[in-house]
Amino acid sequence: MKMGFNKRNKQNEHYRVVILGAGFGGLWATKTLVHYPVEICLLDQNNYHTFFPLLYQVAAAELEPEDIAYPVRSIIRKFPNVHFLLAKVNKIDLKAQIIETDICMISYDFLILSMGSITHFFSIKGYEYVYPLKTLEQGINLRNQILTCFERALYEPDEELQKSLLTFVIVGGGSTGVEFAGTLAELVYGRMKKDYRNLDIKKVKLILLEAGERLLPNLPDRLGNYALSRLNKIEVEVRFNSKVSEVRPDELKLIDGSIIQTYTVAWTAGVRGEPELKNWGLPTNSNGRVTVLNTLQVPGYPNVYAVGDLAYLEEDGHPLPMVAPVAIQQGVATGKNIALQISNEPPQPFHYKDRGTMVVIGRNAAVVYLFNRLYFTGFLAWIIWLAAHLFSLIGFRNRFLVLINWAWDYIYYERVVRLILPTKSSSL
Amino acid sequence: MKMGFNKRNKQNEHYRVVILGAGFGGLWATKTLVHYPVEICLLDQNNYHTFFPLLYQVAAAELEPEDIAYPVRSIIRKFPNVHFLLAKVNKIDLKAQIIETDICMISYDFLILSMGSITHFFSIKGYEYVYPLKTLEQGINLRNQILTCFERALYEPDEELQKSLLTFVIVGGGSTGVEFAGTLAELVYGRMKKDYRNLDIKKVKLILLEAGERLLPNLPDRLGNYALSRLNKIEVEVRFNSKVSEVRPDELKLIDGSIIQTYTVAWTAGVRGEPELKNWGLPTNSNGRVTVLNTLQVPGYPNVYAVGDLAYLEEDGHPLPMVAPVAIQQGVATGKNIALQISNEPPQPFHYKDRGTMVVIGRNAAVVYLFNRLYFTGFLAWIIWLAAHLFSLIGFRNRFLVLINWAWDYIYYERVVRLILPTKSSSL
Repeated sequence: MKMGFNKRNKQNEHYRVVILGAGFGGLWATKTLVHYPVEICLLDQNNYHTFFPLLYQVAAAELEPEDIAYPVRSIIRKFPNVHFLLAKVNKIDLKAQIIETDICMISYDFLILSMGSITHFFSIKGYEYVYPLKTLEQGINLRNQILTCFERALYEPDEELQKSLLTFVIVGGGSTGVEFAGTLAELVYGRMKKDYRNLDIKKVKLILLEAGERLLPNLPDRLGNYALSRLNKIEVEVRFNSKVSEVRPDELKLIDGSIIQTYTVAWTAGVRGEPELKNWGLPTNSNGRVTVLNTLQVPGYPNVYAVGDLAYLEEDGHPLPMVAPVAIQQGVATGKNIALQISNEPPQPFHYKDRGTMVVIGRNAAVVYLFNRLYFTGFLAWIIWLAAHLFSLIGFRNRFLVLINWAWDYIYYERVVRLILPTKSSSL
Repeated sequence: MKMGFNKRNKQNEHYRVVILGAGFGGLWATKTLVHYPVEICLLDQNNYHTFFPLLYQVAAAELEPEDIAYPVRSIIRKFPNVHFLLAKVNKIDLKAQIIETDICMISYDFLILSMGSITHFFSIKGYEYVYPLKTLEQGINLRNQILTCFERALYEPDEELQKSLLTFVIVGGGSTGVEFAGTLAELVYGRMKKDYRNLDIKKVKLILLEAGERLLPNLPDRLGNYALSRLNKIEVEVRFNSKVSEVRPDELKLIDGSIIQTYTVAWTAGVRGEPELKNWGLPTNSNGRVTVLNTLQVPGYPNVYAVGDLAYLEEDGHPLPMVAPVAIQQGVATGKNIALQISNEPPQPFHYKDRGTMVVIGRNAAVVYLFNRLYFTGFLAWIIWLAAHLFSLIGFRNRFLVLINWAWDYIYYERVVRLILPTKSSSL
């Protein structure tokens, strides 16, 4: 194994902080730490940061992949003490304080684990036929599948097969499932209806399966009910108490034995921690996430932190949600705590400032829940959602292009991004 | 085999025209024929039209793939007599007048062959290690390879290996090769220099190999010389009389025995017709292109036409060039000729109106050759080139986004599109 990053620069005695993952947590930790006398090595297996909250819009052909991805090197180039490494982590050796990657080994003084979560398929059979929605690649795959199903259905003489091709199932009634269902309904009954004028659009079926009794279980009842009535209005069939037991290429089986004929099962039902974490000696909970102290340190390793989806932390007896604001705030807090440790001061406990939750449901409608007391639904909520997301996008140009895409869409009721994108690639 | 498109509508006795390929030739033939009483079936293996003249800019990370691709269904939706079929052609049966695709069979009254050309590797060994530049997918692959080489080189301790990773070879001194070399030089010495500040950018080597004695062999000497001096100025090494004999993953061998250590060989050296054409009974020349009559009809098959790169036709003793304007004019001419045949009138011979040739060489510089007599070089030529290409892009939104990308690039001297795009995909 080549030793790439492990030669410490003897001229400066700066501590080296290695940050695994350039998601929200890792990036905000980086941005916090650049102002301290440390050498930062930021590692990711992609050369871009993905704005996950809008990934479902790529899957629904509303945004282009590039609209929600931003090159990491553009973000860090202002900071001379940050180095980016495009690599995959093979192993973390907590005792030796060394990260083994597919490129080289890296030693660290401080480590921040911010690799996020992976899709949790629970115990369903045939999960390889499911379309998860966790990475940009998966977003593109799901979009390609949906568009290809329409192309195939148009010339399919067998009525039953045509119906299967036009049945799209979304598993999970949380915010991603609800948002994706809403956007998909718009794509289908808006643009696709015009593009496939020889296809009876009434044959399309959008089904949202939720294992529990209501939508948006983390939000007040009123908002879940609004989401349900809104989805029903735009022709999305919502089924409660529906747990998937098996997926096959052309059908989905529920635990109650009923079967849905479909070629497309989008999965937004669950996430978990990377199973390797446990093998590397990290303390994990039953969901594979790393349990952390309230300082976000990993128990037993005061120089190792975990943030974002990957970290499991309870506050007031409830686990913190796996959302971008938690990751961002934890990234900042971890950066500050490492700075404190370098100055020989004790790290401080983390407290989450919940500024609210927003879920958009198709054109002009959203639910917004702010400061645990304010509710908004409908168009006003949609405007708040739009503004909040636009301002969160990294980089002016991305914001601008996304706004153009949305404005175009809004004015012309048109999806302009309906390319089935090329996919095969080379790798070094 | 299912019969999808072959049931003729008995209510109207319109002729069915099948058009294979939604490139420039196929699309302009479609646009011409929509005004006549025909049923048009337009077939392509992608659901988008690619603006090939700017493909090299996707490969050089200057434009996003979506900037040069436009959904075919958006283009044809105004025309009720056009049907689009996303499919691959397996076989053409000229006697039975039936096209066999991977989806269904289609019978035709008139057929237009407009599938374009494929890369010609001549007789080099190891062509599977070469990066061709003919499809959107290949453009993305080449870009991913270039960006990945920089990422790898940054942490490569072996000096020789690092040099190989940073050597980029472009084969072919025609317009695509010259344009790609110019744009790549800008990417490297502009944006990449800033992004990889710990990398000595002087280690990067850009080499353009031309088998002949000069660049842009189809244009007057003066313009080829200008291109050469311009490329030399922006650090591109041009080697003449250089024929490739073999490519391996990490090196390239020339016929004179010399070797260039490189991981990236971009291939713009040659194109040819799809070999299957000959097997299907079409008359082809030594380059695999279909030889056509001056009416663009295929000899022996008065209801079969060939246009664009796929068609071989000489005018005044010279073969017509394989460029977009020829394909567009031939598409229009073919549409009109089929309309004439339907009215029992004889098809007319095709004459190419050569409005000029333009080649851009990096920032602010181009050569333009108009009406076989006017020359422009430098900034004025670049402005003419920019305007001409923008106005040729299909769809206002694409034009607008490309303009934003270019303007941003021009003002900030910045490449914002440097994503190593996700690639693996599902297929139905």
